[in-house]
Amino acid sequence: MKKSILIALLAAPLMAGAASAQTKVVNKAVTETEVLAAQKGWCSALVDISDTYAAKGLPAAKQLATKVVDEAYGYQLGAVLFKPTLAAAPQSFRTTREGAISYFVGGDQAFPHDHGFATKNWKRCDIENAAIFIAGDTATTMGNVRFTDKDGKVTIVDKTWEFVKDNAGKMRIMVHHSSLPFIGD
Amino acid sequence: MKKSILIALLAAPLMAGAASAQTKVVNKAVTETEVLAAQKGWCSALVDISDTYAAKGLPAAKQLATKVVDEAYGYQLGAVLFKPTLAAAPQSFRTTREGAISYFVGGDQAFPHDHGFATKNWKRCDIENAAIFIAGDTATTMGNVRFTDKDGKVTIVDKTWEFVKDNAGKMRIMVHHSSLPFIGD
Amino acid sequence: MKKSILIALLAAPLMAGAASAQTKVVNKAVTETEVLAAQKGWCSALVDISDTYAAKGLPAAKQLATKVVDEAYGYQLGAVLFKPTLAAAPQSFRTTREGAISYFVGGDQAFPHDHGFATKNWKRCDIENAAIFIAGDTATTMGNVRFTDKDGKVTIVDKTWEFVKDNAGKMRIMVHHSSLPFIGD
Amino acid sequence: MKKSILIALLAAPLMAGAASAQTKVVNKAVTETEVLAAQKGWCSALVDISDTYAAKGLPAAKQLATKVVDEAYGYQLGAVLFKPTLAAAPQSFRTTREGAISYFVGGDQAFPHDHGFATKNWKRCDIENAAIFIAGDTATTMGNVRFTDKDGKVTIVDKTWEFVKDNAGKMRIMVHHSSLPFIGD
Repeated sequence: MKKSILIALLAAPLMAGAASAQTKVVNKAVTETEVLAAQKGWCSALVDISDTYAAKGLPAAKQLATKVVDEAYGYQLGAVLFKPTLAAAPQSFRTTREGAISYFVGGDQAFPHDHGFATKNWKRCDIENAAIFIAGDTATTMGNVRFTDKDGKVTIVDKTWEFVKDNAGKMRIMVHHSSLPFIGD
Repeated sequence: MKKSILIALLAAPLMAGAASAQTKVVNKAVTETEVLAAQKGWCSALVDISDTYAAKGLPAAKQLATKVVDEAYGYQLGAVLFKPTLAAAPQSFRTTREGAISYFVGGDQAFPHDHGFATKNWKRCDIENAAIFIAGDTATTMGNVRFTDKDGKVTIVDKTWEFVKDNAGKMRIMVHHSSLPFIGD
Repeated sequence: MKKSILIALLAAPLMAGAASAQTKVVNKAVTETEVLAAQKGWCSALVDISDTYAAKGLPAAKQLATKVVDEAYGYQLGAVLFKPTLAAAPQSFRTTREGAISYFVGGDQAFPHDHGFATKNWKRCDIENAAIFIAGDTATTMGNVRFTDKDGKVTIVDKTWEFVKDNAGKMRIMVHHSSLPFIGD
Repeated sequence: MKKSILIALLAAPLMAGAASAQTKVVNKAVTETEVLAAQKGWCSALVDISDTYAAKGLPAAKQLATKVVDEAYGYQLGAVLFKPTLAAAPQSFRTTREGAISYFVGGDQAFPHDHGFATKNWKRCDIENAAIFIAGDTATTMGNVRFTDKDGKVTIVDKTWEFVKDNAGKMRIMVHHSSLPFIGD
């Protein structure tokens, strides 16, 4: 750059409209608030499916479960790492959308042992995180989820979820490992 | 830019040494090969601790377990989301380094129910992945791990690991959820 | 877990179909190969727009440029950090889709100083990377890009691109800083 | 899981200390606040080097510049994608630590055209971002940086920085492309 150019630069006006208030921000990072909201969304959806099943029967519950799986999980990306609480070998891992829907509402001949976890009259679903790991645009949580049914009985599970924020800013579950607690000797 | 400068640019030589073979690459992304190697590393370490316990006793095994936890897990980052197979409430989640070491070798009064999972004479440890999710510099696996002891007895667990590649390029476990398979009705 | 359950587990068969060949892999990490392909794609698109302009005129070139911007950049995410080579203040930064299209083909009253960089009869576009930084599902390159026009004149620019792999696996430019080389004293 | 076990689970106490206030959070994601702080840190460091040069001479300035490069850039990761404002071919790209230090203070025979950008009596350094892209544990900014020297003369540059948050939570510059604004026709 010749000296004459440099001098011209020194006198150059600032770019118009450069106030920080006008900075455009595209943020793909996950916040703790988004993680907690996504967890609560899962709990709400579970209770909703349960209520729908009780009020309207299996077809309506399956329709809702399908919507929930399509919106809250990331099967669109190719597979989800889903090990539901009450799924047994050789169908422990529900890497397909159909396997997830069946787990929640049952009634799918391809998964004959599924009774529909979301059809058990759940009225509450509470989350107690032990720890959260936010790795950028993914976040993983581990802790207990406590399900309360209409009779007040409580079932506690150990649960790990990994969420990924998609291009539309939506949090999707890519990993879900749920298990009954180990009962020590 | 004045026209004279632009003409000068048109005649400018290429930068020296620009051959693609000389491109410097810093790669923080995780490859599938790195994931599989990290999993095998965990299995090898478990068998090593088990062999050390059998040959040299608890102090030597604990020393090795400490080394393994410090090198293979990410407690340096503040916490790890670790739910070991045989850990029961209220100590199900081992978010601290001490809790992890105790789980593997026992002998820590702070974790009185730990018997030392790595002291059970394991001779083999085999991994069967159901699915892998690589999210950039993290990767999560889900599947079965099969432990074979000196008598040939096999224990199978459902296991999820999330690895993160640290600044030194080392894969560290940030999430580890292991559970005994659900036995259906 | 009661002892009887544990014994049952020890005898449990492996999950069916667990061969590693069947592991499902979802991979959001960027590879060096994908980076180089995305760069070449940009170069090809530039020459295509230039050829289209020469053969069919501005409307056809603008239609193609619009398609290229929509497919190769990430304006869908909210903004792109784009500082084109020949854009001057106060319109140096083209954070909007319209600003990018105008830069490539001109003819937009909102950007009166744009002459259309892609209309300059470019016949070749070659890339020489100095370094590449892959950070997971993003990758940034820095180096020279050399444009050759129909008369064999060469223009060299210093260029930085950051690509992000979207949910569909497509590489999109989120950052593009291009500048004429500094000519030292 | 046998029914007797399930009943035991229903009565199991919650894990101790599960209050959300006690959730451990490991957060590798970058926040906008961290980005702005890292930018200001760069500006402060530049003025510091300039002041040190004026008050104490080159050796002290070089010592400080070395410290700044080691702490604020990511050369430890293998390379940095650094195109300084006033660096010309064939040394436009400073992918090594030595090249960066030389650019800031000069006096290195390996980079004979460096006069030391940070030795120019800069008194102020102000940032005006056009846009910011946060991609997880990296963040990229683009905008103007305005340098004011002791005589009140202002130099404006177009600048792109990509920061990465390292394992220790420190923001490091992995990409830095700075250029004199294009002066239109």
